Amino acid sequence: MSNTICAISTPYGSGGIAVIRVSGESAIPLVDSLFHGRKSLMEVAAYTVHYGEIRRSSGVWNTESDKEDILDQVLVSVFRAPYSFTGEDVVEIACHGSMYIQQTLLQWLVDAGCQLAKAGEFTQRAFLNGKMDLTEAEAVADLIAAQTKAEKDLALSQLRGGISNELAMLRERLLTFTSLVELELDFADHEELEFADRSELFALAQEIDTTIGKLVSSFKTGNAIKQGIPVAIIGAPNVGKSTLLNALLGEERAIVSDIQGTTRDTVEDTLVLDGMLFRFIDTAGLRQTDDTIESLGIERSRQAAQKAAVLIHLQDSTQPIDILAELDDINEKKIIQVYNKVDLLGKEAMRQEGDEARIYLSAKSGNVEVLKQELITFAREQYDTRNAVTISNTRHYEALVRAQEAIQRVQDGLQMQISGEFLSMDLQDCLSALGEITGQITSQEVLNNIFGKFCIGK
Amino acid sequence: MSNTICAISTPYGSGGIAVIRVSGESAIPLVDSLFHGRKSLMEVAAYTVHYGEIRRSSGVWNTESDKEDILDQVLVSVFRAPYSFTGEDVVEIACHGSMYIQQTLLQWLVDAGCQLAKAGEFTQRAFLNGKMDLTEAEAVADLIAAQTKAEKDLALSQLRGGISNELAMLRERLLTFTSLVELELDFADHEELEFADRSELFALAQEIDTTIGKLVSSFKTGNAIKQGIPVAIIGAPNVGKSTLLNALLGEERAIVSDIQGTTRDTVEDTLVLDGMLFRFIDTAGLRQTDDTIESLGIERSRQAAQKAAVLIHLQDSTQPIDILAELDDINEKKIIQVYNKVDLLGKEAMRQEGDEARIYLSAKSGNVEVLKQELITFAREQYDTRNAVTISNTRHYEALVRAQEAIQRVQDGLQMQISGEFLSMDLQDCLSALGEITGQITSQEVLNNIFGKFCIGK
Repeated sequence: MSNTICAISTPYGSGGIAVIRVSGESAIPLVDSLFHGRKSLMEVAAYTVHYGEIRRSSGVWNTESDKEDILDQVLVSVFRAPYSFTGEDVVEIACHGSMYIQQTLLQWLVDAGCQLAKAGEFTQRAFLNGKMDLTEAEAVADLIAAQTKAEKDLALSQLRGGISNELAMLRERLLTFTSLVELELDFADHEELEFADRSELFALAQEIDTTIGKLVSSFKTGNAIKQGIPVAIIGAPNVGKSTLLNALLGEERAIVSDIQGTTRDTVEDTLVLDGMLFRFIDTAGLRQTDDTIESLGIERSRQAAQKAAVLIHLQDSTQPIDILAELDDINEKKIIQVYNKVDLLGKEAMRQEGDEARIYLSAKSGNVEVLKQELITFAREQYDTRNAVTISNTRHYEALVRAQEAIQRVQDGLQMQISGEFLSMDLQDCLSALGEITGQITSQEVLNNIFGKFCIGK
Repeated sequence: MSNTICAISTPYGSGGIAVIRVSGESAIPLVDSLFHGRKSLMEVAAYTVHYGEIRRSSGVWNTESDKEDILDQVLVSVFRAPYSFTGEDVVEIACHGSMYIQQTLLQWLVDAGCQLAKAGEFTQRAFLNGKMDLTEAEAVADLIAAQTKAEKDLALSQLRGGISNELAMLRERLLTFTSLVELELDFADHEELEFADRSELFALAQEIDTTIGKLVSSFKTGNAIKQGIPVAIIGAPNVGKSTLLNALLGEERAIVSDIQGTTRDTVEDTLVLDGMLFRFIDTAGLRQTDDTIESLGIERSRQAAQKAAVLIHLQDSTQPIDILAELDDINEKKIIQVYNKVDLLGKEAMRQEGDEARIYLSAKSGNVEVLKQELITFAREQYDTRNAVTISNTRHYEALVRAQEAIQRVQDGLQMQISGEFLSMDLQDCLSALGEITGQITSQEVLNNIFGKFCIGK
């Protein structure tokens, strides 16, 4: 922790400017040894910017000449511990964005005593210095990777402590009870002593169970936002499923022909609609067939339908064939009934209201706006994360599932009036699972795993 | 000029952080309308950094919700006119480097009233506001594009006013004389009147001629630093020219075979040695041939040799064939005599001293260090730009050539004792050509041409 690290924090490549970040105990004197401005960086106030040159004596490094090597004219921002991103002294050097200058500046910093930062090391230091908890640190990586508004909103709410706050309150209350239960164990001789009110504890356990349950089920939403809401296009052969996929994507993604069974492998691609990522899956048409490869494709269609959140059930308007009955487990899915090839009936694309809305369109014409609107409306209702904390991280999800299992064991135990020792173990399991999420309880291995996925320079 | 511009200044792509630059009269209030920190940006001191959130009311933009949209947590640096890069009020926003966040922030700034900056517009404003002259502005673009130490040194010396200082002094002295000559014209009735001492003027014209001459010839060096020092590998067929190119580059760049005439097209590639860019050209072996394509290749070899600054004359140690006599105009070139295939003689790579040093090596072995050293030594002697101002810009070169022509006409005119009117025209031509370089005299077209080549955001 005592070493000072440096890395290029801006995207890779050449551009107008690039920023090199330096963090650690010696960040300020170290940069100051290369920086030549009106003032020494040792004397300047925190949160100020300074113009100067990056120079070093070439004589020290190259005996052929005792001139100074000038690298660049730069702007340097100085932050002092603990009021910085990492909680350490931090200097950010904005240099001209030439690859040569960026690389050389990094090399000069290393020559002067800096270490090259590992992936995510700045954020890891912020975590270790208590500037943010683990879910917030993870949110930084998610924020950088965000490609849609929904993803960005999710990451930002997490960075602002959304999950931490929710869990911290629960954990604190549970901690009080656990301490009381453990206090009872210290007085094990007095069997009748009960510091922790069992009915209050049971109520709390139920409340925690419910809250965790909500978070656990929010993972479906959070995951869909990150990976894309899965939408499977299903239907009989030759109703125009691939044509519809291409029309939605606005490109010739899937091979289209008049021959039944053209699509065998499921074809996937993503599209952002209204700030939400959708993952469309074109599938093989469902029918009885002797073709082995096609049969395998149809099996994949069934699997895709099972995994999807939305089914676009496509039928040919001129000869509708309903294949929904052939699919299992579709009760909880959003099903959109779409009738293709309205151009053959001489009709326009439209939405027919009713108990079960029907959409009529011509995928061939490329005009699928009415279907896109239906998807947007559905996503706005089902994937609105503004009013509730949403889990999108698999690590959080798994820890929550463990916490829920433990808290359910606590409830069972209370009903069965098990002894304090066993109750305490289940309570500890729950606390530990919750603590893992925010990083109150964590191992170096877990940390390496998390921060290793970051980009260098953050 | 009154509008406020914005652009992403860091390289394209996603990374730890990205910087968006805003410049213009309204830069501070405009960013302040989106920024929410502890203080309003209107009140903060120049050259300070502030942490806060980028937010805007979503109600204004989206009637479905009256919540605030939060984009990101950012660091904002504030600079006030005239103490900024552009000489205007400037705000730099360092946001998380997600593509979504960068693009959205840019969009929000545009929604708030910013204009998207054109390529080079920040630097153009710096020029128009007198923060730098034209050669310095051009140096910014060169600095960003720099790929080697030599290129960076050249650009940085230009950015620090190298060329401007040299030309400004000459121009000022010439301007004094020109004013005196023109004053004489005002007193045209008194033919004998001579304010400008003709012999002094002649001496100055000679001095200017010499100085410009030096700058003009420095262009060869400057251009080689930017484009790479051209090194042609020439020799009889099958002496191993392509093998040598591959060995120098350390990759299988050119096709190699035992068949004479394998190389037809000249094969080019660049390599950085000791901070200098070299451009190696492998050529067809010189010989008499009836093969039409090979003949064309040999013609290209001759042209490549003519354009090169260095000729590597390659011979087979086991049966040397000197082909230098077959080339024209090679007197002023550096010629390196290299004998290949020493492995067949059972010898090691070495450099033999003498009136004309000879290098013995085996290109096949890949060990061509001794040749690389020879090239580095040559480049250090011939392309050292540390002690003299070096021109590397074609626009400067062309203007200098015009200035030199004009100043030579001035000298001729003085010797022929031509009248003040004609003398004055030539003096004006010279002044105007010199003024174009630093931008004292310039047209919008020239400016567009220069700044259009910049990257966006600088």
